[in-house]
Amino acid sequence: MSERRTRSERVVTTREAILAAAERLFAEHGISGVSNRQIGQEAGQGNNTAVTYHFGSREGLVRAIVRRHTDRIEEIRRHMVLRAEGSDDVRDWIACMVAPFAQHLADLGVPSWFGRFSAQVMADPAYRDIMALEALDSASLARAGRELLRCLPDLPEEVREERQEMVRILMVHMIAERERALAEGAHTAHDSWQRAASGLADALAGLWTAPVALPRP
Amino acid sequence: MSERRTRSERVVTTREAILAAAERLFAEHGISGVSNRQIGQEAGQGNNTAVTYHFGSREGLVRAIVRRHTDRIEEIRRHMVLRAEGSDDVRDWIACMVAPFAQHLADLGVPSWFGRFSAQVMADPAYRDIMALEALDSASLARAGRELLRCLPDLPEEVREERQEMVRILMVHMIAERERALAEGAHTAHDSWQRAASGLADALAGLWTAPVALPRP
Repeated sequence: MSERRTRSERVVTTREAILAAAERLFAEHGISGVSNRQIGQEAGQGNNTAVTYHFGSREGLVRAIVRRHTDRIEEIRRHMVLRAEGSDDVRDWIACMVAPFAQHLADLGVPSWFGRFSAQVMADPAYRDIMALEALDSASLARAGRELLRCLPDLPEEVREERQEMVRILMVHMIAERERALAEGAHTAHDSWQRAASGLADALAGLWTAPVALPRP
Repeated sequence: MSERRTRSERVVTTREAILAAAERLFAEHGISGVSNRQIGQEAGQGNNTAVTYHFGSREGLVRAIVRRHTDRIEEIRRHMVLRAEGSDDVRDWIACMVAPFAQHLADLGVPSWFGRFSAQVMADPAYRDIMALEALDSASLARAGRELLRCLPDLPEEVREERQEMVRILMVHMIAERERALAEGAHTAHDSWQRAASGLADALAGLWTAPVALPRP
């Protein structure tokens, strides 16, 4: 009995070490730029097959890292969505998308890696869908998205599509750049994650509601 | 005499082959993900030192690729800035920043690589400054930037700073994503570079002029 518990505790510890090592290495070198062997070594595993044993495929590993964070982000967003209830202001719903990600990084402290890890996942067409599927699974994000569309003027479909992509790109890259600057002790435009998220929500609300120019000849 | 000309022609051909090969490889694998040996092989050079012989450092090679395009982009932008002369509309000056890059890719045809190459350069802290310095050298870009700030409400310095970064990130990544989609025959929101640039200018004008929310407690 006690031996069994010890073994299962050891499994948890090993999995945690692999997740932390992989997240950092992926954040620095990209998903395809890192081998399972490097991850195992960084996690202190003598056995070269530890990653495969615990997570199966590379997809399984990336998904496990994403889940580790999205559960907590979802919790923060659930509360924000409740507070925004009934609002017709685009910015409130944009903030529900952006601020929980920023708040989670604030909670993690410096250095965190999930911001840069996310940018690397989004930059890699082979893994991007994992993140998109996790986002689809988020009830609070889906709710914020529906409310956002409700508040919006009747945007043409192709404009809505491109602006959704712009929001995704800006959110991920601005957060990754700030995380990098904090980790390197470099200058940042804002002195807190909260202010950075507020600035991002302002800009994205302007982006979403910008008038659409008629095409010129 | 004729032999000398043949030799200098050969040098030009070799340089062009190296530039084209390096641009494509950097676009696909990142600046640090490619060796000089790979570039030489791809350019059909038996000699492993061809890249170093013709371009000196890696910086010299990246700069030469950037220059090859920025000369033509500058020419397009010079004309646009002349047409925008006297305008007080933020969108006109934003368009002067974005549209010439898009127009240049339209001129290059499919597949082009400079969009993705630019995104890779901007993602690599070691080479990002090369692009920033080239941009600083552009008289038409500097002019558009000055006019943009003239049209703007009095934005706080940190907001101006973050929005400049947002414009840079969105322009480079949206253009790179569209170039990739075209090369892969995938779906794109707009059916031409001109419309894509127009949609981007709309959104960026909204982003620049968005009101700044007061920080919440």
